Amino acid sequence: MVQEKENIVRIAVDAMGGDFAPEYPVLGAIEAAQEHKGLEVILVGPEKEINDVIAKQNVQLSNLKVVNADEWVTMDDSPADVFKAKPNSSLNVALKMQREKQADALVSAGNTGAVLSHSTLRLGRIQGIGRATIGAELPSIKGSTLVFDVGATVDCRPDHLVEYAIMGSIFSKYIYKKDNPKVGLLSIGEERSKGNELSLAAIEMLEKAPINFVGNVEGGDILRGTVDVVICDGYVGNILLKMAESVLDLFKFKLREYSEKGFFQKIWIGMMYGTLKRILKKFDYQEQGGTPLLGVNGISIIGHGKSTPYAIKKMIFRAEEVSRLEINNKIEKVLKENKLINK
Amino acid sequence: MVQEKENIVRIAVDAMGGDFAPEYPVLGAIEAAQEHKGLEVILVGPEKEINDVIAKQNVQLSNLKVVNADEWVTMDDSPADVFKAKPNSSLNVALKMQREKQADALVSAGNTGAVLSHSTLRLGRIQGIGRATIGAELPSIKGSTLVFDVGATVDCRPDHLVEYAIMGSIFSKYIYKKDNPKVGLLSIGEERSKGNELSLAAIEMLEKAPINFVGNVEGGDILRGTVDVVICDGYVGNILLKMAESVLDLFKFKLREYSEKGFFQKIWIGMMYGTLKRILKKFDYQEQGGTPLLGVNGISIIGHGKSTPYAIKKMIFRAEEVSRLEINNKIEKVLKENKLINK
Repeated sequence: MVQEKENIVRIAVDAMGGDFAPEYPVLGAIEAAQEHKGLEVILVGPEKEINDVIAKQNVQLSNLKVVNADEWVTMDDSPADVFKAKPNSSLNVALKMQREKQADALVSAGNTGAVLSHSTLRLGRIQGIGRATIGAELPSIKGSTLVFDVGATVDCRPDHLVEYAIMGSIFSKYIYKKDNPKVGLLSIGEERSKGNELSLAAIEMLEKAPINFVGNVEGGDILRGTVDVVICDGYVGNILLKMAESVLDLFKFKLREYSEKGFFQKIWIGMMYGTLKRILKKFDYQEQGGTPLLGVNGISIIGHGKSTPYAIKKMIFRAEEVSRLEINNKIEKVLKENKLINK
Repeated sequence: MVQEKENIVRIAVDAMGGDFAPEYPVLGAIEAAQEHKGLEVILVGPEKEINDVIAKQNVQLSNLKVVNADEWVTMDDSPADVFKAKPNSSLNVALKMQREKQADALVSAGNTGAVLSHSTLRLGRIQGIGRATIGAELPSIKGSTLVFDVGATVDCRPDHLVEYAIMGSIFSKYIYKKDNPKVGLLSIGEERSKGNELSLAAIEMLEKAPINFVGNVEGGDILRGTVDVVICDGYVGNILLKMAESVLDLFKFKLREYSEKGFFQKIWIGMMYGTLKRILKKFDYQEQGGTPLLGVNGISIIGHGKSTPYAIKKMIFRAEEVSRLEINNKIEKVLKENKLINK
């Protein structure tokens, strides 16, 4: 475990976030607290329900706490309205704790739009950042590619893309240990002249930014791992991410279709299954430690609605890493050094 | 074979289009002419080089012709400049033949931008169509999904998206035999309120268009086959298409990586390979009959630069189908019936 700061890191987990809440977030929190004593895991949500899940596990953990919150944000709540409508939501209470220095980070597998809006409103943004961004880790031949933005802002401005590039680059460097990470701008051709209005306006600014910018990359470069960080607006990024997530569904369907052709085929697919599962592991979002929300003046790790306890645990560990490595301080430092604060 | 018109269909093949020209286009043309006598295949390009390839095959085909053209468009030529710079290119000569009614369709695996610009300039557009569109067939759980546009126009206007939807819908109905094909607008959520400036402006117009519009679809719906036709602007579509094409590369890499772990793994992957190849066939663009360029007042079928002779042959058959089924007349008819001509 990374140990830049000596103290305990306190992670507030939105116990009501995700399709299988409170069960999965609570189970994930228990696993994280059991495996790693350098953490304090704080489950935020309806006390009774949370304690019921804990009781079934028959565990006593001094580094697992419960903080009550009687409301919660659902997947159907409008991110714009729910902040005022449900002031005592588990999400809001968890973020208030971070604001009041009772927690160091938030983990939520809930309504992504709501996590974004609540985090921005509760924590504010890092000085010099105009828009927070949600990143995603996609599988690649080289390991993985980080894509920013995957849905925080549709209709980005060119300067937003530059912010994503700087933040994504720092995230890649410290969290993914990439030395001088390569940053590419997603477009429709490698040539500098190819792109849409937004990308053509952004490329000049990216060339001057304090990053290792390699120019335009194409859709195929994400899975091929040509660069470490791919920058695009949230509309494109969200569509790409959801497409990548569906590759596994199509593949599983094709395997099933084949296995239904006959007895031999069924046995054969059954034999191949374990190997294929290992090979395709990277396409499974359960394996990832959630997606970071970068640019807010605090730490929010967002998970897929279908996150398993294992995925929640990985998100908690990721949140700890971001806290210990002081990613936000590193972003601020680069912005200051390059006089990008007062724009 | 479809037989709405009784006469021979004449397909002009750009013999210098693609990474393996003239060899692959010539071989594909020979295969098509051999297999199907209802076709006349006209190879356009440097006569001597084409005849050399034909001579090696030792075939005599009365329905295979060669028309000389001394220049050709390369992958590096700028689509904007090459039209004037190389008036005698194989692409331009082939399209001139179509304009002068000496050919019914063009097939080219060459520079996509040049095929688009030459086709638009030589053939003009269907009355009522403001922008031509390039489509792509992506694999899906239901078979395949057609995506328009995949790169003809970046920075589309909302009315362009409506044109793509009408043309794509007709293409799906007649070529893919889909009864009342479902059309979806690519966006970042199913809700009507989710999208970017372009998609939000387009959705109202699409709801009124003469198509079976089902609303917004997400990135995951393409491979899941939720709808038959997906509409998006060319920037997003191009990125998606290239990403989908790269899925196979990543998968092959993962298989190779696994097989290099040891002797047993190598044998095991070797055993699985045939089955996987069959299952993943749909991700292979070689299997497709090229992508149609819809909206021009003629027929242009565009192929991948790496098209094999088999892919070229399929493109020739696709061109014939589009000609025999009179897809352009059907588009014009719908536009006229819905008073969409004089806008």
